[in-house]
Amino acid sequence: MDVLIVGGGIIGSSIAFEVAKRGASVVVIERGELAQEASSAAAGMLGAHSEFSADHPLIPLALASQAAFPAVIAELRELTNIEVGWNESGMLKLATTAEEYGELTEHYEFWRRIQPQHVRWLTPKEVVDIERNVRNEYGAMYTIDQQVDAKQLSLAFTHGAMAKGARFLPYTEVYDFIFDGERVVGVKTTSGTLYAERIIIACGAWTPMLAEKLRLSLHMYPVKGECVSVTTETSLLQATVFAKNGCYIVPKANNRLVIGASAIAHSFTKTVQASSVHHLLARAMQIVPAIAHSTFEKAWAGIRPQTKDGIPYIGAHPQYENVFVVTGHYRNGILLSAITGRVVSDMLEEKDVPFHMTPFSLTREGEGHALRH
Amino acid sequence: MDVLIVGGGIIGSSIAFEVAKRGASVVVIERGELAQEASSAAAGMLGAHSEFSADHPLIPLALASQAAFPAVIAELRELTNIEVGWNESGMLKLATTAEEYGELTEHYEFWRRIQPQHVRWLTPKEVVDIERNVRNEYGAMYTIDQQVDAKQLSLAFTHGAMAKGARFLPYTEVYDFIFDGERVVGVKTTSGTLYAERIIIACGAWTPMLAEKLRLSLHMYPVKGECVSVTTETSLLQATVFAKNGCYIVPKANNRLVIGASAIAHSFTKTVQASSVHHLLARAMQIVPAIAHSTFEKAWAGIRPQTKDGIPYIGAHPQYENVFVVTGHYRNGILLSAITGRVVSDMLEEKDVPFHMTPFSLTREGEGHALRH
Amino acid sequence: MDVLIVGGGIIGSSIAFEVAKRGASVVVIERGELAQEASSAAAGMLGAHSEFSADHPLIPLALASQAAFPAVIAELRELTNIEVGWNESGMLKLATTAEEYGELTEHYEFWRRIQPQHVRWLTPKEVVDIERNVRNEYGAMYTIDQQVDAKQLSLAFTHGAMAKGARFLPYTEVYDFIFDGERVVGVKTTSGTLYAERIIIACGAWTPMLAEKLRLSLHMYPVKGECVSVTTETSLLQATVFAKNGCYIVPKANNRLVIGASAIAHSFTKTVQASSVHHLLARAMQIVPAIAHSTFEKAWAGIRPQTKDGIPYIGAHPQYENVFVVTGHYRNGILLSAITGRVVSDMLEEKDVPFHMTPFSLTREGEGHALRH
Amino acid sequence: MDVLIVGGGIIGSSIAFEVAKRGASVVVIERGELAQEASSAAAGMLGAHSEFSADHPLIPLALASQAAFPAVIAELRELTNIEVGWNESGMLKLATTAEEYGELTEHYEFWRRIQPQHVRWLTPKEVVDIERNVRNEYGAMYTIDQQVDAKQLSLAFTHGAMAKGARFLPYTEVYDFIFDGERVVGVKTTSGTLYAERIIIACGAWTPMLAEKLRLSLHMYPVKGECVSVTTETSLLQATVFAKNGCYIVPKANNRLVIGASAIAHSFTKTVQASSVHHLLARAMQIVPAIAHSTFEKAWAGIRPQTKDGIPYIGAHPQYENVFVVTGHYRNGILLSAITGRVVSDMLEEKDVPFHMTPFSLTREGEGHALRH
Repeated sequence: MDVLIVGGGIIGSSIAFEVAKRGASVVVIERGELAQEASSAAAGMLGAHSEFSADHPLIPLALASQAAFPAVIAELRELTNIEVGWNESGMLKLATTAEEYGELTEHYEFWRRIQPQHVRWLTPKEVVDIERNVRNEYGAMYTIDQQVDAKQLSLAFTHGAMAKGARFLPYTEVYDFIFDGERVVGVKTTSGTLYAERIIIACGAWTPMLAEKLRLSLHMYPVKGECVSVTTETSLLQATVFAKNGCYIVPKANNRLVIGASAIAHSFTKTVQASSVHHLLARAMQIVPAIAHSTFEKAWAGIRPQTKDGIPYIGAHPQYENVFVVTGHYRNGILLSAITGRVVSDMLEEKDVPFHMTPFSLTREGEGHALRH
Repeated sequence: MDVLIVGGGIIGSSIAFEVAKRGASVVVIERGELAQEASSAAAGMLGAHSEFSADHPLIPLALASQAAFPAVIAELRELTNIEVGWNESGMLKLATTAEEYGELTEHYEFWRRIQPQHVRWLTPKEVVDIERNVRNEYGAMYTIDQQVDAKQLSLAFTHGAMAKGARFLPYTEVYDFIFDGERVVGVKTTSGTLYAERIIIACGAWTPMLAEKLRLSLHMYPVKGECVSVTTETSLLQATVFAKNGCYIVPKANNRLVIGASAIAHSFTKTVQASSVHHLLARAMQIVPAIAHSTFEKAWAGIRPQTKDGIPYIGAHPQYENVFVVTGHYRNGILLSAITGRVVSDMLEEKDVPFHMTPFSLTREGEGHALRH
Repeated sequence: MDVLIVGGGIIGSSIAFEVAKRGASVVVIERGELAQEASSAAAGMLGAHSEFSADHPLIPLALASQAAFPAVIAELRELTNIEVGWNESGMLKLATTAEEYGELTEHYEFWRRIQPQHVRWLTPKEVVDIERNVRNEYGAMYTIDQQVDAKQLSLAFTHGAMAKGARFLPYTEVYDFIFDGERVVGVKTTSGTLYAERIIIACGAWTPMLAEKLRLSLHMYPVKGECVSVTTETSLLQATVFAKNGCYIVPKANNRLVIGASAIAHSFTKTVQASSVHHLLARAMQIVPAIAHSTFEKAWAGIRPQTKDGIPYIGAHPQYENVFVVTGHYRNGILLSAITGRVVSDMLEEKDVPFHMTPFSLTREGEGHALRH
Repeated sequence: MDVLIVGGGIIGSSIAFEVAKRGASVVVIERGELAQEASSAAAGMLGAHSEFSADHPLIPLALASQAAFPAVIAELRELTNIEVGWNESGMLKLATTAEEYGELTEHYEFWRRIQPQHVRWLTPKEVVDIERNVRNEYGAMYTIDQQVDAKQLSLAFTHGAMAKGARFLPYTEVYDFIFDGERVVGVKTTSGTLYAERIIIACGAWTPMLAEKLRLSLHMYPVKGECVSVTTETSLLQATVFAKNGCYIVPKANNRLVIGASAIAHSFTKTVQASSVHHLLARAMQIVPAIAHSTFEKAWAGIRPQTKDGIPYIGAHPQYENVFVVTGHYRNGILLSAITGRVVSDMLEEKDVPFHMTPFSLTREGEGHALRH
């Protein structure tokens, strides 16, 4: 086998899709079901603009991924017939306090310099003119932000990769590696031993434990994100509405709204706290008062991988050069899925990657990533 | 057939159980599944004390029913092997505002006169000594209040009645009656026509529509009650905690807490409003702060039958004397289930009922219940 | 109000959609949630060809409805953004016994005369060439048969009607009519009294009970249909496969197969019999052996309205001319949804209906439909 | 900490319960939720007699555990108030073919020698006299076999251990051990590093992967067991009915029957095959024909740990003497839960264990268990 990918979430699947398209033989190993965990729990914003208000190494990848989405979605639909609920209705960032107003101004100014044609400042009246159910506060509209059903997109990458010849082994767990000098030549799994030319570790928040077996300390931790959803009789929103203090409201098909998300660091527990349900609903009703009359649907949680410096790990193992680690996307995993497969495939083929990848190195300077001796 | 009961909730089933025990042949018709609607949605308090703070016609029945429960539970367990989660851990009423303090004093004084041995006034310190997770406020403990799993108790009555020979026809709907002069001799149902000596209408909030076909106007309306449940790692409460403004917290098996309930009049819609989830959690966290860290489980709603004067209907039809109506128990249906079957069976057998039943008459004075001409 | 529709399933909603489009004010009353019962339980075949092998009054409507679907789907998507999973992958009818071979020949010959361009006879080898997972038996392919997700289509009609101004009252029950001489001027409901110029009864299998109140005996009965679904790792089928003895296999999105359906007459009970699950899986594994290795998903049931002569009721009440009854579509309700709204709207407007509607009359000759005196 | 247990299923929890009772400080680490996997999927037979028809090292433990159950259940109920659905209605083994008749005779003779007072041979007529819904075949009744709700019993051990002071860390994963010469002094987990005097590995089918990190090869494999459940209107069975070819029918509360179980070796996949649902229902309807009319409820799977020689591993690590492994109970984990905690606690305290434990040694002779070098 050419490439073995550990992790059947959206990152592993999107890499499998691209690698298989380029003709390599691929196997993906997943310890549970495919497209679970953070990949299915995400609210599905493809918000290249929502996360950054200053220069950041991820911005070029985020913009490139967002731009790539329409074509990727079309390609996946053609291959799999899976509907992923994609649309490009934009994101409305809102300021509900003086402090948020300051931050929004800064955010708006930052993006106005980069993409003036896609950003628009809004007075409270203009906010209500555009989204009549939103509270009248100052806002900024980022017109090209998109969104998808994250679970369906993850499944589309999975089935798209299958259509291109990739094989998936769900309910299979890697518990050790097979070494041959300076190379890792295979993995021991609960479905038997597998050998491969190249191995990619893309296990989200569970990556560090596997990396330990390769004598690599990753400075990562899990961040639980909790969401609730409600349904309404008529459509309340067109755009995603994003306020500070962990509150965004994403309008989905069938008059459904996803309200996210808490950020509870260092928890692998997929339970939802009562206080989080309370807080998310309170914030949502403050921003869109009509949500008070909506029908409560459900609450859930996902465990997202965060790194100490907030930059994903995308790169080769410093010692075992045929092993790659791709993780740490935190809240940007869905957004980056369209480009990650291409970047990693370029690395595998030793092509030039059209992005500056040094900041994503596994041994970048700073607070850690030390190889253990 | 001797007796035909329309309605397979806890009231219809408890009547079927007693009637069958006394040797009559019984058929129960239910348009959906058995033991659904309000019977399965209730929090399951058997709180004879919680609902009343002044004289009320229901008090004698409530106390008698509460006293009857231990024996009824034992009998049903013997017959059906169904566990109903009964316990007698008491009810702690709490005052969180000055207004509630006044009401609690009145409530306590009322019950102290009736059952001094079962009531105890508590200082904030005493409240916390008894229930260490409850906020330190003045309270009163009603030591003999009990609780059950309402759904399981409803099923136990259903299966207990089956064990005594009653037949149940679920998914069967009555759409008309068969008259013979001044008697109703049968019903037309979606499972065919059935004839009976006596007919009992016990359809909860859906009773008025059927009563109309018997030219009887009942002054009733539905009141939706919404609940949420949470689970905790360790037990937070022993007693049920009851505060004003529609908030009670009922500790169930497996460290589960049921938090209820809203009261939305005139709604048959079994959806849960987002604002209700928010409000119930807010109140619960205020009274038992550790609930903030509990795990959210789910939310649900039930439709309870309320009468205009707040007194159930239990009695014979003014014109068709072999027809009886038993409904309108609002929040007291589970509590009254142990005694209702006996009272109604006595009526059917033309025995003396050991309670003053005039206030429950279908044609009692006041604002309605007029027979249509 | 111009038009009041009782019944919020796919028939009621499709009528509401068309009536609202033509400018009338419409209210739809539904006693439970919208788009439930048979409308959400159906497998979603739009098989104009699968049901008939001889002349039948429904054939012109079925073909017209099937032809109308692509445009209707597009219109609903534009209005509601709801994906209904429509595709036009055809239907493969299979003969697994000598008796079925005879029937298939007859069926094929019948349709070859009507639509030679859309029918193709297949040898066992050709069957396997087209659908490699199907057992090698003689078959016939009906190339233009379509399918949808029935529940989503029903919701699309509901929300499409809302977009055109129709109002829906879920959890509202009609329990009586208001008469004024030879007209029905309104209905009494659990949400209050409503008046309308015209009233349409479209309550599926529950229609006869309401019709009784209008002194109309409909010769109808419920037929429970049970289905199971399975999922597979790779796609097993493109076309719907239809064999005799109540077995069809409908390929859905995400490698899901719906296997239907039993036909249990005179049952309103929405439970699934163990023997039906057993039988459906046995037949499916016989026809598509690889289903043995599929993952079992779930089982469910719907209650379909059937008439004694197998022809739906679509027409005016013989006495109350402003009341219309539209029901009895049995297994063809989803298929006929695209045309039913138009036909009924034409009737309401007293336009010429472009179909021969006498066979659908409520008082047609034969075994019943007598007006009661 | 005195004792650290890896694995929060019924084995780990029952050890935690006993160890905590004896006064040691205990922490249990579980990578998912507590009481999941095989512990919650089991049908809950406590059938000391059903599994063996010849001498086997497990028989003394099985009989002792069965005898201990009534007292353990009472103790857990007292501590936790959790109902576990225990009863002692016996097991009816049935022979439906000539081959099974021979095996049943052998089985009966074996147990008649050991416990003549608890075994009874039954003619077909006697079978039907005792269980009137069972097919008239030869049978044998093992009168003291018991059963529980496996999931509830597992939770009762968990919460019983908590009540005795044990701490549980759900959603926590062990990914490495900390060594100090010939001792393992702690574990690295996703919730941080933990140190303990003694460490017990009780991870069911997932144990071998962890054992590998301690240089121990366990000859084990997973065996998936699939079950279905149905409900009936009246009780069909009193005793558990056990026929060959993987079919047992266990009567539960509320007229529910659990039908199990397939045995699919080498699968960690918790999906249920369509063919298994088909096969389980077919066998159940053959043995208890009235099951054909029962209501299908659901299907599920659990992954059970099996060893190569069929004997569990219960013993100390050959090299790291403060590490113990307890796993491989296959279909006997629930049955053995009442005694396993005591046996392991005795081992930890270096007391004499009142059973012959050599056959359970991790390094027993035969086909493996070799320590890796």
